Amino acid sequence: MISWTNFDELSSVKKLESAAKVDLTKEMAGENGAARVAKYSVPMSNGLAYNFASKQVNDEILGALADFAKEAQLTEKFQALYEGEVINTGEKRLVLHQLTRGQLGKDVVAEGVNKREFYVAQQEKIAAFANKVHSGEIVNEKGEKFTTAVQIGIGGSDLGPRAMYLALENWAKKNGCFKMEAKFISNVDPDDAALVLNSIDVEHSIFVLVSKSGTTLETLTNESFVKDALKKAGLDASKHMIAVTSETSPLAKSSDYLAAFFMDDYIGGRFSSTSAVGGAILSLAFGPEIFARFLNGAAAEDKNSTNADLLKNPAMLDALIGVYERNVLGYEATAVLPYSQALSRFPAHLQQADMESNGKSVNRFGEPVNYVTGPVIFGEPGTNGQHSFYQLLHQGKNVIPMQFIGFRNNQAEMDVDIQGSTSQQKLCANVAAQIMAFACGKVDENKNKNFEGNRPSSIIVGDKLTPEVLGALLAHFENKVMFQGFAWNLNSFDQEGVQLGKVLAKKVLAHETDGALKAYSDLLNI
Amino acid sequence: MISWTNFDELSSVKKLESAAKVDLTKEMAGENGAARVAKYSVPMSNGLAYNFASKQVNDEILGALADFAKEAQLTEKFQALYEGEVINTGEKRLVLHQLTRGQLGKDVVAEGVNKREFYVAQQEKIAAFANKVHSGEIVNEKGEKFTTAVQIGIGGSDLGPRAMYLALENWAKKNGCFKMEAKFISNVDPDDAALVLNSIDVEHSIFVLVSKSGTTLETLTNESFVKDALKKAGLDASKHMIAVTSETSPLAKSSDYLAAFFMDDYIGGRFSSTSAVGGAILSLAFGPEIFARFLNGAAAEDKNSTNADLLKNPAMLDALIGVYERNVLGYEATAVLPYSQALSRFPAHLQQADMESNGKSVNRFGEPVNYVTGPVIFGEPGTNGQHSFYQLLHQGKNVIPMQFIGFRNNQAEMDVDIQGSTSQQKLCANVAAQIMAFACGKVDENKNKNFEGNRPSSIIVGDKLTPEVLGALLAHFENKVMFQGFAWNLNSFDQEGVQLGKVLAKKVLAHETDGALKAYSDLLNI
Repeated sequence: MISWTNFDELSSVKKLESAAKVDLTKEMAGENGAARVAKYSVPMSNGLAYNFASKQVNDEILGALADFAKEAQLTEKFQALYEGEVINTGEKRLVLHQLTRGQLGKDVVAEGVNKREFYVAQQEKIAAFANKVHSGEIVNEKGEKFTTAVQIGIGGSDLGPRAMYLALENWAKKNGCFKMEAKFISNVDPDDAALVLNSIDVEHSIFVLVSKSGTTLETLTNESFVKDALKKAGLDASKHMIAVTSETSPLAKSSDYLAAFFMDDYIGGRFSSTSAVGGAILSLAFGPEIFARFLNGAAAEDKNSTNADLLKNPAMLDALIGVYERNVLGYEATAVLPYSQALSRFPAHLQQADMESNGKSVNRFGEPVNYVTGPVIFGEPGTNGQHSFYQLLHQGKNVIPMQFIGFRNNQAEMDVDIQGSTSQQKLCANVAAQIMAFACGKVDENKNKNFEGNRPSSIIVGDKLTPEVLGALLAHFENKVMFQGFAWNLNSFDQEGVQLGKVLAKKVLAHETDGALKAYSDLLNI
Repeated sequence: MISWTNFDELSSVKKLESAAKVDLTKEMAGENGAARVAKYSVPMSNGLAYNFASKQVNDEILGALADFAKEAQLTEKFQALYEGEVINTGEKRLVLHQLTRGQLGKDVVAEGVNKREFYVAQQEKIAAFANKVHSGEIVNEKGEKFTTAVQIGIGGSDLGPRAMYLALENWAKKNGCFKMEAKFISNVDPDDAALVLNSIDVEHSIFVLVSKSGTTLETLTNESFVKDALKKAGLDASKHMIAVTSETSPLAKSSDYLAAFFMDDYIGGRFSSTSAVGGAILSLAFGPEIFARFLNGAAAEDKNSTNADLLKNPAMLDALIGVYERNVLGYEATAVLPYSQALSRFPAHLQQADMESNGKSVNRFGEPVNYVTGPVIFGEPGTNGQHSFYQLLHQGKNVIPMQFIGFRNNQAEMDVDIQGSTSQQKLCANVAAQIMAFACGKVDENKNKNFEGNRPSSIIVGDKLTPEVLGALLAHFENKVMFQGFAWNLNSFDQEGVQLGKVLAKKVLAHETDGALKAYSDLLNI
């Protein structure tokens, strides 16, 4: 029997709070540090490992976290989710994004449909469509092949798919599976669409309109913008556009599109990269086989997340160390720092996945909670970040926990040797050096050159960023967010916080405002 | 006589701390809110205004901030800076980036050189060079025009220039002054350079190597990478490369470059966008006239920053409201939210400018301070952010102050009318709506749909993002960071926090490691 209990009502939290704090400057020094690097590592799928040696934990704290995981029934809650309980209590919806990439438990049937079969059928439809585009069976009005795919979507229909595309672009080019360039239009700022349209050959472009409800104002506006441009170029928009939407949306049956592919209400936007939302654009860009490999990676990592043993469940462990940092140690933000240029927009995707899921002040029953919840998430790729905001991470007044990601090999397999090492070696040397600089610091009599250390970080290490590895990384962080939501007793799958702004924006556009809202509207000449 | 005093030793801080707190849900409601929007606005240059109606301040708090500005001698300290005192105490350097765009006080002569004249001379050299590239006087080895400029630099040699280029790309295309596409290579990850090199026509590309010291490892590594690629393409690298560096650097006199342009030690990397660091690439991309207009905008805003009247000095006011939020109200982070796709990387630039300057724990004399300093800075353009992390900003447990930027008109002047409004109107309606939603919230019996409000934001509003406006925006934030540094008695112009990682990375590459650093190095196969 699952009990949904507030974080501060769980008795294991007391043990966590009373455990002596870990000082990394001591723990990570000398051979003890080396032993921690060897010991505090959890294998992930696809050759990845989650190494948490430089986190402020020890066996006692890990024991308390394991007790917490049991008391909070994290494994049981995950099982309830993937077996189709109404986990999204606010919107009364199932939460089924894991089903887009595998089947972890018993069949989930909703409204008479086996949902795994439904998602697989959509993937097969997308695969067939993408193959026809690549083979030249589906072509533009002149009978010429499409060369560019442009996603029109915002939020989860943009950040995840865009981050995934950028993550595999170099890899696909190197490995002979780069089929089409992808571009993305998201912002309602007309300059966004204008810049993209100016940079492409519209005649050979296929547009992927993504909106679950079919009513997202930004996306419909950009659709109009694009249709206008196609019309001006003398092209038939309906021959250049596909839709990714829900079966019940106004876009689903429209003759305005070459084809429509479906997700449903059980796939939250920020968890939709492995559904048709990511599937259409990634299958067009790299081919359906590559998208399938990406899904396989995610499925393998989902499986790790079902393990009830905390020390064999990297997403759960990552989640609970984060909860310890947030609620016991009091840290407010987390930096995501991939040492991989391909992951340049992965932090922006995680920013949504995490902050929109757990940036909440009420529990899953709508009752205010008395403890802090999701942190601020931000980040840029290393080594760029080192030359930017790391100063504050090293010597600022607040401690910001860090989440590094690193790979032993680069994707493009082009490199250069200078001063006795390759670029890739320099990249890896930097991430190793940073972890240790943060953990151990350095004592200097000149206090301006003094580093206090004891600044915690973890690293996920892999061999190379392939489609499988990317899928595993994505699933790891999705599941981390989910486990944190369970720990805080939140509903991580709604986003009521975005509603008020929408309502007020409509009032502004209808000129139904007074007071300060009217004053701001006047200021902006609306 | 200037007195450099710690923040917590200033008596006006007591007044700030004891003033009653402002509740925006009350203050911004009804006609009082409208009156605040009208009253709490400071004109900036180039038609911009800094509106702080939705910040948690009132006349009493503003009075206390004005007292603080006087007691902390902010105006005098700024004057000392622009008139050439050794403000960067750690590195014993002058701080002269304002001189790249104007002369605010008396002449600054250092090492026998009038520094304003030196910077102007470099701009003129750059202008002449760029004009020759555009006219076809300077061409590639086949006598053909260069079509692409690629900046190779990291940190301040990348983030600022890249953000400025993206900010003006659409505008320049619309206004007939788009001369060449610009690209940027920064990360030592070889996949960064590989992707850029794969996307350009190297034969018609000119590379801008930017490193003040001429020893930045990432940049020299990427230079080698590019030279390799040029060589493989049968091209003479020295005919495709210019250098931006200091006169004393190893790059300055090298015959490896078509030309060299200079900055000096008095221009900090993160403040170098208006020096040759930004000047070369922006003059190549848009022409020297556009770069000159950008400098004029910055100069005009610098002038505003000299005003001793806090309510007529937008950068100082913005800075002190931020100090109040950080040190009295206890907020840890600030979100920068431009409602302009062109400013997509402006938050990343500000992240460096702010966090690298004021993410410190010692004062300008190297003594530890007992108060918090620079906040975490993060942000993405609206409306994209609305569909991402705004959930936490609206309903999360911690308050995150916000800094909006909005323009009445877009750059590309392409737009579309849907559901009775243009995209631009929707964009502006959204920023107005968000400010009010954050300030006033909305009471709902369903606590999941309840918005507490009282979440503070300011907005900088302008007519359109032109070169002048961009310069003004840049100067505003540079000066804000500077004033906050003065308020906290920091040296905002060094970055000792980046050193330890560099030292350790060298050890890793030399295989001179033991303990955990060796263990991490092994893990990453170095």
